[in-house]
Amino acid sequence: MIHHHDDGARCELTSPTAMPQAGGFLWNRRMMIQVTCRGYATAQFMQPEPAKYAHAPNLEAKTFMQPEQAYYAHHPGRFVYVKDEETGELFSAPYEPVRAKVDSFSFTASAHDLSWTVEHLGLRVEMRLGLPTKDVVELWELRVTNLTGRPRRVSVVPYFPIGYMSWMNQSAEWRADLGGVVASCVTPYQKVADYFKNIHLKDKTYFLCERAPDTWEAAQAAFEGEGGLHNPSALQAGTLAGGDARYETPAACVQYRLALVPHQSECYRFVFGPALDDAEIATVRDTYLSEAGFARARTAYADYIASGRGCLRITTPDAAFDRFVNHWLPRQVFYHGDVNRLSTDPQTRNYLQDNLGMAYIAPAVTRGALLHALGQQEANGAMPDGILLIEGAELKYINQVPHTDHCVWLPVCLQAYLDETGDFALLDVDVNGQTVAQRFDAAMAWLHQDRDARGLSYIAQGDWCDPMNMVGYQGRGVSGWLTVAAAFAMKLWAGISADAGRTEAAARWFAAAQELNDAANCHLWDGDWFARGITDDDVKFGVAADAEGRIYLNPQSWALLSGAATDEQRARMLAAIDAQLQTPHGVAMFNPPYSRMRDDVGRVTQKHPGSAENGAVYNHAAAFYIHAMYDAGEADRAWRALRAMVAGPDEADLLQRGQMPVFIPNYYRGAHKEYPRTAGRSSQLFNTGTAAWAYRSVIEGLCGLRGHPDGLRVKPQLPSGWNEMNAEREFRGARFKLQVRRTGAARVLLDGQPLPDGLVRNIQAGRAYRLDVELR
Amino acid sequence: MIHHHDDGARCELTSPTAMPQAGGFLWNRRMMIQVTCRGYATAQFMQPEPAKYAHAPNLEAKTFMQPEQAYYAHHPGRFVYVKDEETGELFSAPYEPVRAKVDSFSFTASAHDLSWTVEHLGLRVEMRLGLPTKDVVELWELRVTNLTGRPRRVSVVPYFPIGYMSWMNQSAEWRADLGGVVASCVTPYQKVADYFKNIHLKDKTYFLCERAPDTWEAAQAAFEGEGGLHNPSALQAGTLAGGDARYETPAACVQYRLALVPHQSECYRFVFGPALDDAEIATVRDTYLSEAGFARARTAYADYIASGRGCLRITTPDAAFDRFVNHWLPRQVFYHGDVNRLSTDPQTRNYLQDNLGMAYIAPAVTRGALLHALGQQEANGAMPDGILLIEGAELKYINQVPHTDHCVWLPVCLQAYLDETGDFALLDVDVNGQTVAQRFDAAMAWLHQDRDARGLSYIAQGDWCDPMNMVGYQGRGVSGWLTVAAAFAMKLWAGISADAGRTEAAARWFAAAQELNDAANCHLWDGDWFARGITDDDVKFGVAADAEGRIYLNPQSWALLSGAATDEQRARMLAAIDAQLQTPHGVAMFNPPYSRMRDDVGRVTQKHPGSAENGAVYNHAAAFYIHAMYDAGEADRAWRALRAMVAGPDEADLLQRGQMPVFIPNYYRGAHKEYPRTAGRSSQLFNTGTAAWAYRSVIEGLCGLRGHPDGLRVKPQLPSGWNEMNAEREFRGARFKLQVRRTGAARVLLDGQPLPDGLVRNIQAGRAYRLDVELR
Repeated sequence: MIHHHDDGARCELTSPTAMPQAGGFLWNRRMMIQVTCRGYATAQFMQPEPAKYAHAPNLEAKTFMQPEQAYYAHHPGRFVYVKDEETGELFSAPYEPVRAKVDSFSFTASAHDLSWTVEHLGLRVEMRLGLPTKDVVELWELRVTNLTGRPRRVSVVPYFPIGYMSWMNQSAEWRADLGGVVASCVTPYQKVADYFKNIHLKDKTYFLCERAPDTWEAAQAAFEGEGGLHNPSALQAGTLAGGDARYETPAACVQYRLALVPHQSECYRFVFGPALDDAEIATVRDTYLSEAGFARARTAYADYIASGRGCLRITTPDAAFDRFVNHWLPRQVFYHGDVNRLSTDPQTRNYLQDNLGMAYIAPAVTRGALLHALGQQEANGAMPDGILLIEGAELKYINQVPHTDHCVWLPVCLQAYLDETGDFALLDVDVNGQTVAQRFDAAMAWLHQDRDARGLSYIAQGDWCDPMNMVGYQGRGVSGWLTVAAAFAMKLWAGISADAGRTEAAARWFAAAQELNDAANCHLWDGDWFARGITDDDVKFGVAADAEGRIYLNPQSWALLSGAATDEQRARMLAAIDAQLQTPHGVAMFNPPYSRMRDDVGRVTQKHPGSAENGAVYNHAAAFYIHAMYDAGEADRAWRALRAMVAGPDEADLLQRGQMPVFIPNYYRGAHKEYPRTAGRSSQLFNTGTAAWAYRSVIEGLCGLRGHPDGLRVKPQLPSGWNEMNAEREFRGARFKLQVRRTGAARVLLDGQPLPDGLVRNIQAGRAYRLDVELR
Repeated sequence: MIHHHDDGARCELTSPTAMPQAGGFLWNRRMMIQVTCRGYATAQFMQPEPAKYAHAPNLEAKTFMQPEQAYYAHHPGRFVYVKDEETGELFSAPYEPVRAKVDSFSFTASAHDLSWTVEHLGLRVEMRLGLPTKDVVELWELRVTNLTGRPRRVSVVPYFPIGYMSWMNQSAEWRADLGGVVASCVTPYQKVADYFKNIHLKDKTYFLCERAPDTWEAAQAAFEGEGGLHNPSALQAGTLAGGDARYETPAACVQYRLALVPHQSECYRFVFGPALDDAEIATVRDTYLSEAGFARARTAYADYIASGRGCLRITTPDAAFDRFVNHWLPRQVFYHGDVNRLSTDPQTRNYLQDNLGMAYIAPAVTRGALLHALGQQEANGAMPDGILLIEGAELKYINQVPHTDHCVWLPVCLQAYLDETGDFALLDVDVNGQTVAQRFDAAMAWLHQDRDARGLSYIAQGDWCDPMNMVGYQGRGVSGWLTVAAAFAMKLWAGISADAGRTEAAARWFAAAQELNDAANCHLWDGDWFARGITDDDVKFGVAADAEGRIYLNPQSWALLSGAATDEQRARMLAAIDAQLQTPHGVAMFNPPYSRMRDDVGRVTQKHPGSAENGAVYNHAAAFYIHAMYDAGEADRAWRALRAMVAGPDEADLLQRGQMPVFIPNYYRGAHKEYPRTAGRSSQLFNTGTAAWAYRSVIEGLCGLRGHPDGLRVKPQLPSGWNEMNAEREFRGARFKLQVRRTGAARVLLDGQPLPDGLVRNIQAGRAYRLDVELR
């Protein structure tokens, strides 16, 4: 049902029905579009806050992207109706809104475009969507081919709904001067000051046609009529009426009435997007709406995507995994790092991790982001809840809720950057009067003091990915995870300090980390695992005595990383995780799922039986488990969880998740025992810190090619089922060719010479190295 | 196409397609539901802020009700699918989502319920919706009848979509213990404090069945499948799968598989609504879900509506108008006055006018509202932008934008109340340490001082129904309308003061009114009419020199009421209104419409070409024109505008407006010249101050039965086309039977005796009086 291709990384779906939510996404520096195989689309652009140019048919709340987007007949999308004018038969490409059973269907997500080929009624319809690298313009190419040996009369009707633009006003009409349908509105407001803010918003939506259509319709209702979207009245009538929309929901529908000779093919190009005014629309037309314009944009966009190809290529016994790691994973990492999820105020932890991923693609970006984030550090050393990226941005949504973990991510991100670059000079860079090193000291000191009398870290209203806003909102509750996470951060910073020759700081933070680890052991060790926390009312939770939410993954993974766990503890924790958190789709964030909201613990997204996140495989948490497993040499456990993140390879698995394997979603649903029907389902959300960590784990864990102040440490960790693996990695300007074989020996050869400590030193940029690793 | 019935005031529509938005509305003390003839529904309830229990399929913005609601396939509604299990044929009642061409259709809005009768495939489906007087519960009765002489096998499938309840979580399942589908969610929040606020919200939606169905489905997508709502896969399959919804869009679908003998009829009852918990659902079931429960609720609701029947019954040559005035108009007035538009913070001017309408239904309510509003008067005499009705309510939306007109409405409302009741004792009631009279003095004094050096009233960010938020936001712009409106208010208050023996105050406010009228004449008279205002930058607008927005209605109507206009001015103004503002659907609020936004003037709702309000017949403004016309003895002009408000009576007119004549909407679209296709269209919004004023104009203007401190003044003003009219009016506990005849004479007889000054004195409660009026 899904075919994978390595040429340019394509993934092809051959039916729109079995995985209705499957699709792909494209982005550029100012926009993002997610399109399903059925043609539904969700697009946002920055001006500077996220905005839409194709809307729902009703007043839609402005908010962050929602998981498992519920589509419905009138959801925004990009559709083309095709009507056989001789027989009256009708279908639509890609699939919606007619939902005809077509003769053949294929949807292809490639790295730089999305395309469909649909054959029906002896006609082939090809659709292709591309983006330019910067402008907010959808570039649509449509080709219609007569597959028969007889002449045909057909109508081809692109239908791009524009939706409910504004309750204040909205209109749309055909603009002969611009060659398309142009819809206009004014973003609603009530306070006069907002009018002057909004006046710079792109309140027009254009749909321009390279070739003039025969007729058109600009009002959704007039097009649809009583027939409904699956059989619009305007198409039954034969000819669109050329109407406008006046305080009516706008749509862009244009009709081409074709007479095709046998095997004739016709090609059409359209551009769709938002604009401030007519002049901007005219410029878009001039720049893009031609064969040459499309070709230029296509080349430039392919170059742009290629610039984010990452530092690793692997060949393993698992071809589907290779394809994902070689193409899709770095693409997802690049998306995050290059455009910061198209937000103006990314959460601090997201911002740091998204940029951590860039260490493996474009490390200068990581460096800049670290400095930018530190520039917003508070006077007391704390990091804010979000990083403002532009002048005038504001902390929104969850960034107005105090979380206590943001400082943790500074050393976590820095470690990856330094491993990759060895750029210790960064530590001495001045940021607003303090060096980076001083600011890290201050951040660690803030973490160190933000603890209770027991030495445990306060949680306030949340701490990362299992947000529990009611554990500590009264100021007393503490977080088990944060306690060991802070210890891990201090340990990392101590290590970096030692590497940088800051021996005093190193000693200070090693000791501090130990202090936190000790506190965790003293107050949170529950016998077989670490508790998740202690509430304001001194109730320990995430413990064996809890019937629900008994064991949480994060405190375990991070206790391993922080060094809080002894070998004996580790063995018990791993056994508990295996027994209680392993699912067919990965390691769950906690278990058992909650059957009711627990008021003293948590946020309903995850602690309510109706939530998709209740007991889910939260991939970001699973990513740290993987990181910890590689760190602990648990290659099989790491691999099992890592592989589970990448949907597939078998059909049944893909179907269950509904996930086309072109990105890792932020979660797969859990609660396998309670709700087996929905377990494993993908969130379909590609915004997640998971991508960077998964990539890092493949590079540094699986392939074992991890940076070190002195060079590259080589220590592949193959799953026990594998006997070989090859990889190519770029590192500090050099090129490493790795070949791993399970021979029974245990040694590393560099260019044929033994490398006893497995550390490649004195790496010369521009050189190619060959690494042969033999494993037992 | 539309049939009207007087028995209990019914209005019946015989096709769902020609007027797709036509429908009716029901309300009780805590909820409101507007339902179209096609089955789409919009329902809100108070908890205490407005909330929904049936949602759009996507995240929907919370906002005030929108005009010309755009419906779409998945819009919330109440539907029943009927499938002939022998032939597989399918239709749905009332009409959506299948949209089958049925054999017969009728939709009836009665004063206390909405009902449909649909016949198709030899089956009759009857649906009826009623409400109880207080609980938030829809009471649905469904009857299916085999019209044929042969046995039938059919499936009857009520489908009540519940929609996207919450992005945090949502679920639904069949609850055998409660006998229905129950959906659950938690209202989304991010700040912990909101969780504790929200915990009292009714986050469950129930659909309970009196008779147990054969099977059910609780997930929208599972029900719909690939077939689409017009042909759901679950119905093609034959039997609903009995599935639940887990973070999936919930719907309540239940299936009855019937074997009907010839002419057999089966009746079903359902209740649909929101609840806090299972216990509340069980109580609703016990209270209502039975034949007896429905009957009790029906009787109680009919009594409730009857309590708002108003004080007037008329018989005129215009039967459609009579029907509207005798049944629908007081019903709409009662709705406004009894529940204040189901808002917790009605705009002050709306609150006062909605309660003004109650003077003709339940004057004690008006009295209470005046006192309640005055209790929120500010220390400087100003009235706030909204009146808070409950503890904890907040000013929202437009009520956060400063408007300067609210004090105007105090005497306007009081005058109507005193005319109706003669209750001058009200003036001496203490409200927080000041008498009502003192507070009115203070309000007038605030209006008097809030003027510029020219003596014109500041507009700030708006002043009533043609909100122009940019005229005076810099603090200098002034309002022509408000200047004469303030003069009118002072004149009214002066008159009341005189009647109450407060001679000093009377003189003061007569003089102040004169001062404002003089200022208006000095600075705003434009030669043939009064200007609408002068902007911050000293630009006069609403003047002959303006190509767009040249003449505004409100300044003219109120200048007539305030006494600013001389007879010569009046003649010029009326000629200008006739020439420039008259349209086939009433008097426009301004003309010509704007072809582009005018930044120095106005709010885009009315000053933007894409707005439905651009040059509209804004009925609230038209109502004051009517009031002014009756005040000026312009009976024909008044009648023409009044009649235009009431949609119909001819089919073509109804079609154009799409308005089922069961309420007056807040606008009919204008711009007849520019956009003839959409001109005349109804907003379909029944929230409008128009209702109270239209009722008052019928009573006091057309029938000429207006209260006076000493009794009832009798001065009917028949349109010239009429030769007779009869009316019955209740007034101060007495009953007046009015008969008007155009005889050529001009006299009033009270119980057969001449009444030279037309003033009935010494009215005795409980008595019946007979009034015979002869007109020239």
